[in-house]
Order: sequence, then C-alpha cells, then structure tokens
Amino acid sequence: MTSEMSTMRDSSVSQDAYEQLLQLRASIDNLDSAVVHLLAERFKCTQQVGRLKAAHGMPAVDPEREAVQIRRLRSLAEQAHLDPEFAEKFLNFIIEEVVRNHRSL
Amino acid sequence: MTSEMSTMRDSSVSQDAYEQLLQLRASIDNLDSAVVHLLAERFKCTQQVGRLKAAHGMPAVDPEREAVQIRRLRSLAEQAHLDPEFAEKFLNFIIEEVVRNHRSL
Repeated sequence: MTSEMSTMRDSSVSQDAYEQLLQLRASIDNLDSAVVHLLAERFKCTQQVGRLKAAHGMPAVDPEREAVQIRRLRSLAEQAHLDPEFAEKFLNFIIEEVVRNHRSL
Repeated sequence: MTSEMSTMRDSSVSQDAYEQLLQLRASIDNLDSAVVHLLAERFKCTQQVGRLKAAHGMPAVDPEREAVQIRRLRSLAEQAHLDPEFAEKFLNFIIEEVVRNHRSL
C-alpha cells in the first residue's frame, strides 16, 4: 500500500479526492500514449530527412530551419496557454535526440 | 538564400530532393503542433493534480506512480518502434517541468 492510499482511507472526503486523482492520472496516461505515438511518427519523418540529406549531400544541421521551428512552436504554445519557454526547451530536447540518432546511423 | 537552397538548384534531382524535404518538414510541423496541444492539455491535468494534492495534503511526489508511468511508456514505445530509453528520458523531462511548475505555484 502506498502512503498516499493509506492517507486516502482516513476520511470519505479523501476517498473522493483519491478517485479524482485516479481520473486525472488516467487522462494523463491517455495523453502520454498519444504523445508517444506522435513522437514515433515524428522520428520516422526525421529518419527519412536524415537519409534524404545524406543521399543528396545536404547539410545535416540547418540553423535557419530550427529558428523557424522555434518561433512557430513558441507562437503555438502561447495560443494553447502553454509556457513558450517550455515549448522551446521541448523542441531542443527533441532536436538533440534527432541529431544523436543521425550520428549513430 | 540558404546554402541548402543554393545546393538544391544545381540539378533537377536535387530540386526533387528539396521538394521531398519540404514535404517531410510539413509533416514534422503538423506532428509538433499536435504534440504541443496534447502537452498543453497534459499540463492542465497536472495543474489539477497539484491543486488536488495541495488541498488534501497528499504528497507532491509519488515515486511508485512514476515507476508505473515509466514502465508503461517504455512498453508503449517498444510497440511503436520508438527507443524506450528516449521515451523514459522524455517522461523525466516532462515530470521535471511539472515539478518546477508545482514549486512556482
């Protein structure tokens, strides 16, 4: 038994709160599943980009493209009430992984 | 003009490759938009979790829940042909942001 569950058994109000917590966690799990599948699809695209660039001697890194992506994601994040700083950090995290994958190919 | 575009103008094969690159980038942008909106929804859920835990004196951090999430996401990643190590790093990246948000509230 987790400490959280035992806390929850102390009163009926806490039982209700615990059920709300489980519902929110189920939503978080659903959203995470969707994100993982979208990221899998995204990496399929970046692998194709990597192969295309290698086959045609295009530069692996394109700072202009990255700058456009960052501006675009920050703007989207603002519209979605998500911290634009976080959106930029998130994109950099993903791009680092893409670069790591390209190097390992 | 980017160095990439000028490279592309050297031959018709390269023009075709450049068009393929633009198509792949458009798909990446669509997927990123979807992920940003899902993450915005996810942070709405974790903010609710934060408020619920604060209101009911539940511990802010739950290592058991995190362990379950990591196992679950690694398994989903494998099914989606995504590197499970990356899926775990991704979840940790998101959880760090959630903890940072909870601390700033």
